[in-house]
Amino acid sequence: MAEPLDVSEFYSATQPEATKKYIMQQVMVRVKDPKVSLDFYIRKLGFHLILHRNFPQYGFSVYFVAYCPKEQIPVSQEDRWNFCMTCPACVELTWNYGSEKEAGMLYNTGNSDTTGVTGEKVRGGFGHLGITVPDVYAACQRFKELGVAIHKSPNGGGMKGLAFIKDPDGYLIEVLPHGPLVTQPFDCNGVAVDGGEGYKDNSKL
Amino acid sequence: MAEPLDVSEFYSATQPEATKKYIMQQVMVRVKDPKVSLDFYIRKLGFHLILHRNFPQYGFSVYFVAYCPKEQIPVSQEDRWNFCMTCPACVELTWNYGSEKEAGMLYNTGNSDTTGVTGEKVRGGFGHLGITVPDVYAACQRFKELGVAIHKSPNGGGMKGLAFIKDPDGYLIEVLPHGPLVTQPFDCNGVAVDGGEGYKDNSKL
Repeated sequence: MAEPLDVSEFYSATQPEATKKYIMQQVMVRVKDPKVSLDFYIRKLGFHLILHRNFPQYGFSVYFVAYCPKEQIPVSQEDRWNFCMTCPACVELTWNYGSEKEAGMLYNTGNSDTTGVTGEKVRGGFGHLGITVPDVYAACQRFKELGVAIHKSPNGGGMKGLAFIKDPDGYLIEVLPHGPLVTQPFDCNGVAVDGGEGYKDNSKL
Repeated sequence: MAEPLDVSEFYSATQPEATKKYIMQQVMVRVKDPKVSLDFYIRKLGFHLILHRNFPQYGFSVYFVAYCPKEQIPVSQEDRWNFCMTCPACVELTWNYGSEKEAGMLYNTGNSDTTGVTGEKVRGGFGHLGITVPDVYAACQRFKELGVAIHKSPNGGGMKGLAFIKDPDGYLIEVLPHGPLVTQPFDCNGVAVDGGEGYKDNSKL
């Protein structure tokens, strides 16, 4: 079958010299209550807090979490900044002061939800964050025991062997294996691998 | 001054054993036209295309781009998948077929814009992606020459030495240095370091 888009020119592209040291360092999402979010990202997902900065003059704080060797994280704020700026794949959690006192969910998650707007579904661009783990089924079993919202269990839907969980603000987090998609007979929700409700993916939302 | 939130418990948290091999592997955003987006991420930002997958049965394709040593990227699709799943900080660009034929901007960017909804500003959660570079001013000069939209030049606004550019779908990309924020007298837009229009940050949007 023909490719929907011929991408051979992109696979063979030469990296521009000027960009050779660029690092994909962060993705920023706003969170309602940083204490709740930090507990989730650090105690449940296992990220490290590597840097935080307060901007009381502007009314917000930011918290950078990342998977990196904990022993490499420096102690002083200045050293933490320098470390953070060269640490790939940080998640920057932004807290606008006072948001934690507001009722309900606050921020649109990007996936055709009506949060952050009055009643209309938003055609959002952001889809999800994604982590990879040694064993998707074991990870989801643990998440379930920790009270994490399971959006799609590994055997749910049409794509078997991957899952989606939700962070406290409702952002989707895909859970994928480190290698090929492998399945197990039953998942954390008791769904059989030949079960599920047909294909479900949030790409089209 | 007291901290808005005491985060000492999070700095000192022990990583759960079960999460020690977790990788922050991806952030997914939907793009209107993958050819335009791949050109931007690969030729302008210098990412590599490491994997793409077509799902014609579901009407979409995904393209994973990352900064990684190009020589490490395997050739076969199967090997590319395995490589991708252990490559931190991939950006997954999702293309829903046909979106490239629609008029105008399609997807809400998360930053209080009205795209993807009828007239109302959305309180979005996603803020931006962020790259770090050896020289923010030189990077922005090159971006400008390549026709990239500069949302905030390094000397614009109140935070000097960092910039925001826009990708083809309007997603913000922060451009930060590898270390401390340093300034230069003038930036790519001719703005003096003591110029700018006061503080501007998208965190509060």
